Amino acid sequence: MSSRFLHTLSRSDFCALLRRFAPTAAETLPFTTTFDRILAENLTAPEDLPQGDRSCMDGYALAAADTFGAGEGNPAYLECRYAIEINAYPDFVLAPGECAWIPTGGFLPPGADGVVMVEHTQDIGGGTIEVRQSAAPGENVMFRGEDARRGAPLLNAGTRLGVPQIGLLAALGIGEVAVHRRPRIAILSTGDEIVPVHARPRPGEMRDVNSHALAALVAQAGGDPVLLGIVPDDLATLRETLARGLARSDALFLSGGSSKGTRDHTLDAIAALPGADILAHGVAMAPGKPTILARVGTKPILGLPGQVGSAQVVMLVLGQPLVRHLSGDGRAFDETRRPVRRARLARNLASRPGREDYVRVRLEETPEGCLAHPLTGKSGLLRTLLHSHGLLRVAAEAEGLVAGQEVEVWLV
Amino acid sequence: MSSRFLHTLSRSDFCALLRRFAPTAAETLPFTTTFDRILAENLTAPEDLPQGDRSCMDGYALAAADTFGAGEGNPAYLECRYAIEINAYPDFVLAPGECAWIPTGGFLPPGADGVVMVEHTQDIGGGTIEVRQSAAPGENVMFRGEDARRGAPLLNAGTRLGVPQIGLLAALGIGEVAVHRRPRIAILSTGDEIVPVHARPRPGEMRDVNSHALAALVAQAGGDPVLLGIVPDDLATLRETLARGLARSDALFLSGGSSKGTRDHTLDAIAALPGADILAHGVAMAPGKPTILARVGTKPILGLPGQVGSAQVVMLVLGQPLVRHLSGDGRAFDETRRPVRRARLARNLASRPGREDYVRVRLEETPEGCLAHPLTGKSGLLRTLLHSHGLLRVAAEAEGLVAGQEVEVWLV
Repeated sequence: MSSRFLHTLSRSDFCALLRRFAPTAAETLPFTTTFDRILAENLTAPEDLPQGDRSCMDGYALAAADTFGAGEGNPAYLECRYAIEINAYPDFVLAPGECAWIPTGGFLPPGADGVVMVEHTQDIGGGTIEVRQSAAPGENVMFRGEDARRGAPLLNAGTRLGVPQIGLLAALGIGEVAVHRRPRIAILSTGDEIVPVHARPRPGEMRDVNSHALAALVAQAGGDPVLLGIVPDDLATLRETLARGLARSDALFLSGGSSKGTRDHTLDAIAALPGADILAHGVAMAPGKPTILARVGTKPILGLPGQVGSAQVVMLVLGQPLVRHLSGDGRAFDETRRPVRRARLARNLASRPGREDYVRVRLEETPEGCLAHPLTGKSGLLRTLLHSHGLLRVAAEAEGLVAGQEVEVWLV
Repeated sequence: MSSRFLHTLSRSDFCALLRRFAPTAAETLPFTTTFDRILAENLTAPEDLPQGDRSCMDGYALAAADTFGAGEGNPAYLECRYAIEINAYPDFVLAPGECAWIPTGGFLPPGADGVVMVEHTQDIGGGTIEVRQSAAPGENVMFRGEDARRGAPLLNAGTRLGVPQIGLLAALGIGEVAVHRRPRIAILSTGDEIVPVHARPRPGEMRDVNSHALAALVAQAGGDPVLLGIVPDDLATLRETLARGLARSDALFLSGGSSKGTRDHTLDAIAALPGADILAHGVAMAPGKPTILARVGTKPILGLPGQVGSAQVVMLVLGQPLVRHLSGDGRAFDETRRPVRRARLARNLASRPGREDYVRVRLEETPEGCLAHPLTGKSGLLRTLLHSHGLLRVAAEAEGLVAGQEVEVWLV
């Protein structure tokens, strides 16, 4: 067994290797189908937005100078000869001493540079409006080009297209954009004891949980899972399935090989692929220690533990960020973006220094705040996963955490 | 104008009305397609899980009584005649004084009731294993039926099928489950000034942002958006489009009608539908005050403000919880489940008592912690939405918040 089989990295070094893989290529799509995708091009604004100076309020468009000094005790009186329509550009010029009714979103006429809200005015009849508040120039006005200026940078490559970005594309009539393709992630379970979900396990066998749990986690992270099924512990079959899976995907995640013999088997099968390079075998975290990372050509293979709970922790810590990274998200490994909940630890939690520990916790709302109960039962039970609300990380250098300590629980 | 047009509710009363709508009907699907859906039936376990007593560790299966009193200075010595295979049920009975090598997940043989981890043992040759730690009965063993007991309740109707639940279904071979159908949400924009995204707006017109922003928000909440397009301010057309949209959906969201005339128009069109009942017109929140809720038969119509930023706030506060509720999520309106970030307010924030204020904030990480900067610029700009990281709620009774105060920012 060569030394490459015993190469344990810190999590941050492991993530640094994951980050080196290139994101998927761009594809141009109707913008309506790109929600939550990552932009693959720099966009410039094709026109000004707003297209003219528009009112933020229902009220009166006027020359701000006509209201200077106006107040409750000292109103200004302006002549109102016009009502601006919401869907037409005003066809008149406002003269000094005049104002015009304007709806929210209406375009200001030439001669107006501010809006006073209707609440601060009164129509006293005869075409005269009493204005009981002064307006500063530009008050309650969105200026032409304030949202986007024709030809100016609009959204940069790498931007996630959330709801506001989709709205901006709609507002500017940008019908198609280039985004990164959703990465296809091939998924494979290994082990002689694993049978398909529809099968009736014979004594000693168990059904394939990991393929389906991994598929859900891949989809949640924005990838398209490609299920390759179950491969028994046979070197040639595993190697062929890996090659076939990589050919139709951007990355391959396999789980299994918890026993020592099987683990070497997986490494041998990967190493036998043309262009394969085993980058890491082992990461200083628990669970997850025997995680494998390899590169075949430009594509990553991530080898996860066979134990169901362990495989899911590795997916949350390493696999899902990798899927997001391949989707073009440049901040996929940024830990500050995780949804967390602050809580107090309900009991002491021991930890071995030198590796990060990830512990499932159950959260309990109490009058004194949120309590985090570590779920450190038998590691193979699914029950622990069902009752968990999140993950707690104990730093590699820590010897443990103490009851009552404030912790950040990563909600998963 | 009847008094039903002036019926303003508190947010909690408004939500209580939303909660009365029935969730969608059940559909039976392959479990592999049900991730993140809500279970519509109570499930019982079809078999025991695990199917036998299994080891949580690589080590030696033994009778715990044979190790009592064993320790580093006083090891026990057991005879090892067997190695258990991962995929077969042991075909022997362990005699007193014997142990058997067992891999993680392996089934315990009759006569064994505990496992000692391999790290606490040594093979001293001649078939003898030195055991340097005592095992309690049941130690490192998952017992038959510990995860699920045949015939016992497994998952209740109303459970969201997350990754652990999908794993449990796989482990038990439950190939199909009944889940609530994804609600179809018809979406409609109103207003003479609104034109489709592909059109070139004439002066005064603007493109339809809301249809696409709402569609993204509906999809994010687990609904299927059905875009009905843009309806000009014409009573008959609006009424017909509402009726047509409701016929093919579970709920209808419309936006627009920001000017007073249009608002009445929308109410008139809804009221003209057979079986229509306007439940609320107005909610004590800003933005969002003119929000409309109606019931037509069994289906809700939610009337959102036309202003893009306001419509999105109402979707986050009321619309998305409604979509989740219709999907069968009994806790859709539970506020404690929102992902939040604790931060300190960067500046004073005024608020009018008597209504909830929702203010967009930008978060800034600083060495002293996270700072929340309120974005209270001009309300019509898309720019404000683009730079926002979350929403801050100012309670109805508050007159404002002060700089430095700790706040919970709802990450959206």
